[in-house]
Amino acid sequence: MLMIRKSVLSLLLIVFIIHDICAQQGESVVMNKTKLSFMLDRDGAPMYALSFAGRDVIKPSRMGFKLDKDSGFYKGFQSLGVERSTVDASWQPVWGEVSRIHDHHEQLVVHLQQRAAPHRRLDIIFRVFEDGIGFRYVFPRESGLGYFVVTDEMTQFALAGDHKTFWIPGDYDTNEYPYTTSKVSEIDNKELVEKSTDIAVRVAPDRYAVQTPLMMKSAEGLYINIHEAALVNYPAMQLHVDRSSLVLTSSLVPDAVGNKAYLHAPFATPWRTVIVSDKAAGILDSKIVLNLNEPSAIGDTSWIHPMKFVGVWWEMQTGKATWNYSDYADSLSATSGLIPNGKHGANTANVKRYIDFAASHNIQGVLVEGWNVGWEDWFGNWKENVFDFVTPYPDFDVSALAAYAASKGVNLIMHNETSGSATNYERQMDTAFRFMRSYGYTSVKTGYVGRIIPRGEHHDGQWMVNHYNRVAEKAAAYRVMLDAHEPVRPTGLQRTYPNWLACEAARGNEYNAFSIGSAPEHETILPFTRLMGGPMDYTPGIFKLRNYTSVAGRQMHSTLAKQLALYVTLYSPLQMAADLPENYEAHMDAFQFIRDVPVDWDDTKILEAEPGDYLSIARKEKGKENWYMGSITDEHGRVAELSLDFLAPGKKYQAVIYKDAPDADWKDKPEAYVIEKVTVDRRTRLSVKLAPGGGAAISVKLVD
Amino acid sequence: MLMIRKSVLSLLLIVFIIHDICAQQGESVVMNKTKLSFMLDRDGAPMYALSFAGRDVIKPSRMGFKLDKDSGFYKGFQSLGVERSTVDASWQPVWGEVSRIHDHHEQLVVHLQQRAAPHRRLDIIFRVFEDGIGFRYVFPRESGLGYFVVTDEMTQFALAGDHKTFWIPGDYDTNEYPYTTSKVSEIDNKELVEKSTDIAVRVAPDRYAVQTPLMMKSAEGLYINIHEAALVNYPAMQLHVDRSSLVLTSSLVPDAVGNKAYLHAPFATPWRTVIVSDKAAGILDSKIVLNLNEPSAIGDTSWIHPMKFVGVWWEMQTGKATWNYSDYADSLSATSGLIPNGKHGANTANVKRYIDFAASHNIQGVLVEGWNVGWEDWFGNWKENVFDFVTPYPDFDVSALAAYAASKGVNLIMHNETSGSATNYERQMDTAFRFMRSYGYTSVKTGYVGRIIPRGEHHDGQWMVNHYNRVAEKAAAYRVMLDAHEPVRPTGLQRTYPNWLACEAARGNEYNAFSIGSAPEHETILPFTRLMGGPMDYTPGIFKLRNYTSVAGRQMHSTLAKQLALYVTLYSPLQMAADLPENYEAHMDAFQFIRDVPVDWDDTKILEAEPGDYLSIARKEKGKENWYMGSITDEHGRVAELSLDFLAPGKKYQAVIYKDAPDADWKDKPEAYVIEKVTVDRRTRLSVKLAPGGGAAISVKLVD
Repeated sequence: MLMIRKSVLSLLLIVFIIHDICAQQGESVVMNKTKLSFMLDRDGAPMYALSFAGRDVIKPSRMGFKLDKDSGFYKGFQSLGVERSTVDASWQPVWGEVSRIHDHHEQLVVHLQQRAAPHRRLDIIFRVFEDGIGFRYVFPRESGLGYFVVTDEMTQFALAGDHKTFWIPGDYDTNEYPYTTSKVSEIDNKELVEKSTDIAVRVAPDRYAVQTPLMMKSAEGLYINIHEAALVNYPAMQLHVDRSSLVLTSSLVPDAVGNKAYLHAPFATPWRTVIVSDKAAGILDSKIVLNLNEPSAIGDTSWIHPMKFVGVWWEMQTGKATWNYSDYADSLSATSGLIPNGKHGANTANVKRYIDFAASHNIQGVLVEGWNVGWEDWFGNWKENVFDFVTPYPDFDVSALAAYAASKGVNLIMHNETSGSATNYERQMDTAFRFMRSYGYTSVKTGYVGRIIPRGEHHDGQWMVNHYNRVAEKAAAYRVMLDAHEPVRPTGLQRTYPNWLACEAARGNEYNAFSIGSAPEHETILPFTRLMGGPMDYTPGIFKLRNYTSVAGRQMHSTLAKQLALYVTLYSPLQMAADLPENYEAHMDAFQFIRDVPVDWDDTKILEAEPGDYLSIARKEKGKENWYMGSITDEHGRVAELSLDFLAPGKKYQAVIYKDAPDADWKDKPEAYVIEKVTVDRRTRLSVKLAPGGGAAISVKLVD
Repeated sequence: MLMIRKSVLSLLLIVFIIHDICAQQGESVVMNKTKLSFMLDRDGAPMYALSFAGRDVIKPSRMGFKLDKDSGFYKGFQSLGVERSTVDASWQPVWGEVSRIHDHHEQLVVHLQQRAAPHRRLDIIFRVFEDGIGFRYVFPRESGLGYFVVTDEMTQFALAGDHKTFWIPGDYDTNEYPYTTSKVSEIDNKELVEKSTDIAVRVAPDRYAVQTPLMMKSAEGLYINIHEAALVNYPAMQLHVDRSSLVLTSSLVPDAVGNKAYLHAPFATPWRTVIVSDKAAGILDSKIVLNLNEPSAIGDTSWIHPMKFVGVWWEMQTGKATWNYSDYADSLSATSGLIPNGKHGANTANVKRYIDFAASHNIQGVLVEGWNVGWEDWFGNWKENVFDFVTPYPDFDVSALAAYAASKGVNLIMHNETSGSATNYERQMDTAFRFMRSYGYTSVKTGYVGRIIPRGEHHDGQWMVNHYNRVAEKAAAYRVMLDAHEPVRPTGLQRTYPNWLACEAARGNEYNAFSIGSAPEHETILPFTRLMGGPMDYTPGIFKLRNYTSVAGRQMHSTLAKQLALYVTLYSPLQMAADLPENYEAHMDAFQFIRDVPVDWDDTKILEAEPGDYLSIARKEKGKENWYMGSITDEHGRVAELSLDFLAPGKKYQAVIYKDAPDADWKDKPEAYVIEKVTVDRRTRLSVKLAPGGGAAISVKLVD
């Protein structure tokens, strides 16, 4: 199903009608309740506005750039004409929340030219969907720009109200902050940045800047989400907040010398997206970000497989084991070998234990961190040659473990921590991927904990954006799946690189182990913010919720049942069962849900949602008639009322409900859960009580 | 012959004698006329001084550092004791000006410790030779520093007089300036930097900074040369000049964020060298820089061969041909191929012409520039992905040319221009070297014309220093010889990496083609400055000295005979015969010298020398009894009086003298030369008239 209508104005026609269509008159595009307006103001500055069901969402807002070649490339334009077209199509993702995605939009292309010599050109492409808009800038080949540098992007989002906002600081190097909920006019990240000493690298020079995806809710109940799609060869867009005018302005992450992007015409920027809905669920249902990305660049995707995995990892997070083999790099024996500390997690016997567990419990992968030499002094030194990605510690038998995993049908997951030294990784990337292939690793988890090298670059700048994309392409060339930790936050590129299964790029479950953690509301906000760009490797599934760390008093801000629910509410094709085998073995009845839950889906229903408060989702297993449901709440207990009307008519299902025990509570009794089995059909309505900080997971399997 | 005496004070002894040897009392080391003194001043600041034959060369001068961990790491020290040793040894370079090098020095190691907690340690190693000193800092493992950052090096050279100085600006990115001769107190690079628009990248923020090697001559006729040896994992040392106190202070080239060096103890800095002689020839004879470098890191060096080469290059410099295949990158045919400009030099037929010429005339190599795609827009755009190093233009047949060169016994020389985008080169280096090996290339010329990427880094900073060394190591791993253009200036690392035959890193002959050129004195200064660090690929041998460029009025600042002399006076194991075959074919009698002259030597005699004025050198062919002589002069004509007393007693030789015609002159009659043949022996004394800007070359072959 692909229908495209195009009405292209000929160049001749443009010349004649130029005075009719330019300037204040403007253009507009309507798709259902969404209306996009474009105009040039008196100064020839391109402006756009967005309304939804007649209500202002974005008031007239500036567009354009400051370039090295033209510091006023946001005004002085005239219109050369427009093109309009309609797309109503659908496509199938390699994996995802749904098996088919509808792309219905009206497109408006505005051709602009500067009135003054040398009459440089700029195109703006708008796509208007039922649930929002995307727009991008195109510098055409004929723009007269050739090679040029973006020194600033001027794109603004003039908000129509002082909305309730869920935000994290506009930090150039990290997205791992807890979310703050405040009015736009109250945004100020300074205190949060200063006190977040649990985050490895923090560079947030603008106290009024925030990251995207930025989630907002208007006083009238309109849900608004601002982000970007298809971030390629360009820095991440953060937003500077003018707290009095309520105007958000694009703030691109700078490079080592303060420039933003080095470009060559023709070039198309990432899409700027505004998603709007009068229901919170509408935000989560939106496919705008994916639709604005390019189709898969990988032809044969048969080797790409969503999966669950366990790993030698949480035992390091909780202090039971160490990544490093020795206690420090200078701890050398008489023969110059490192003196082992006796706590090294990635030892052959321990890895075998995880392989055995995975093989027995429908877990496809085993991640092993700390397997390669260099962990004694890997962090905090801005050291360039940190790891070589091929040399194991003496107690990690690469060959034997590869053979053992293969014999058990388990995939070992490679770990390539770079410590932020991207130059070192790039030099060795081919060697690293060849190593993976030679030992049968089908996926890799990368990491960027530390200040970036090239020094002066940032995690979210153009150079590193290109780096992450190069890694995805290199991984694809070697048929390796990718899970990137500490990269720029995703922008839907998983459509183009479906081997890029997941990213971290947010505050994961791990913070509950090594820091003050995250509030119970955290996971109700993530789907509306970070996950709008793509799947997150959140590492759910912690069963031992207290007394698991060397730091007294630390605990997960969650009940056990909520940990199960996260497998449904936080979508990812790569889901870790993050806890230790021994902790799962203490609750094998609850572990059954993790064992059962798929990581790839035919369909998704957002049953109820309110960012910061609660979320209930039902998903249909890919290619099967089974459904899985998750409900979570914030620090307040509640009752989730769940209609099962999405089930097939006339069919019976067995539902297994994993829920908080009546007296459960994230703080005082997190591990109390109850498992119920009931027969259900599409008329069933379940009332499930969620504890404070609690949740529920439900498997709904067709009864043959 | 290797004799080492060591007198190491035991730690116990140190403890008892500590009060005797520290502070003002000081230490001194004498080697013949050279005397080095070391002391701690009242502030516990380490100081050194150097005298030669009783005359001050370096007055008491500061040493030490500012570190991120200690901004006063140049004072507050006490001595823990010293160690002394003597080395009297010799070694054989793989290639060089002489076949055996004598290393005779007294070593003094000073162990320092800060008086205040945490009592960090610093060692300083002095080596005192007959002709000067070298010293380096060592941060011992026990220094208490671990990982640390050098924010400034405090090393000073307090000059004893306002010497005549031959200098180029302390530019972070280039050494390609003409030399200025002035008093130290007159040094100011601002005007020169501003007007040197012929140099691609110029960054010289300190108008009073100069590059090393810095050549000076005192009023009393003492020749002094300051440089460094073994520049590894550290930025280049430039010198800031205090014009009133005449103190030179180390000024390290900064990185993208303003730091100088990221280090980890144990670490030894490069050596700081001061060479002294009462004769100019003594500077050129010095082997201090080589002796302070580490022995070859390459075990089997049998594949390393000095050679002469011709190349598809000068025709681009002079406007006959182009590196680029098309006139610009957007010049595309209907089928998207580049539209050829018809002037592309690196086409198969033309390259065969050079191969034929080389094969016929005792030239071992053929360089081809502009063979790979990307030259249409390679320069000036700070573009990251410039070249891929493996994709030829459509008119360059890689396979056919490899086979043709092999059939003729000629080595093709690979050209890898990076445009300064080192990150791009590092990503593709393995691919590039594999490509070379698969097509039989045994050497590569690299290039770094342009602003460096990683952006914010400089050609002479630590990151790029490491890059050049990585390239040398990678080349060695693939058994490829290296000729680096636009790198940091050399520091004797050719001893450690003998496959690194030559560098440019100075103003080469090419400037006479595309710019105002270089004064006739230029080549009389280079051996005392740039070449003190290692061989230069200067590209001598231009026979067509005028009317060779599209720019009217440009000409070489040299006679033809001087071009021949440069093969002897500018030592390099890699010497280009840079002119076009047709220009050589017009003067095959003169070309005979280029055909004959070797590039590897048993012995070298500096017959007469004065920087900025004249230079005559005789060298003995390696493994043979033949000698080759070169004499050059500056803009003044002169008569070189050349004694041949270095010839073997009782032997007769035939000398062929290639000299300026009586009426020759670099400006008005540069191509007028005379060739004489005379029989000579060790009693012969030749008087050879050199034209203004002229020279003479003489082959002296044993008569059997």
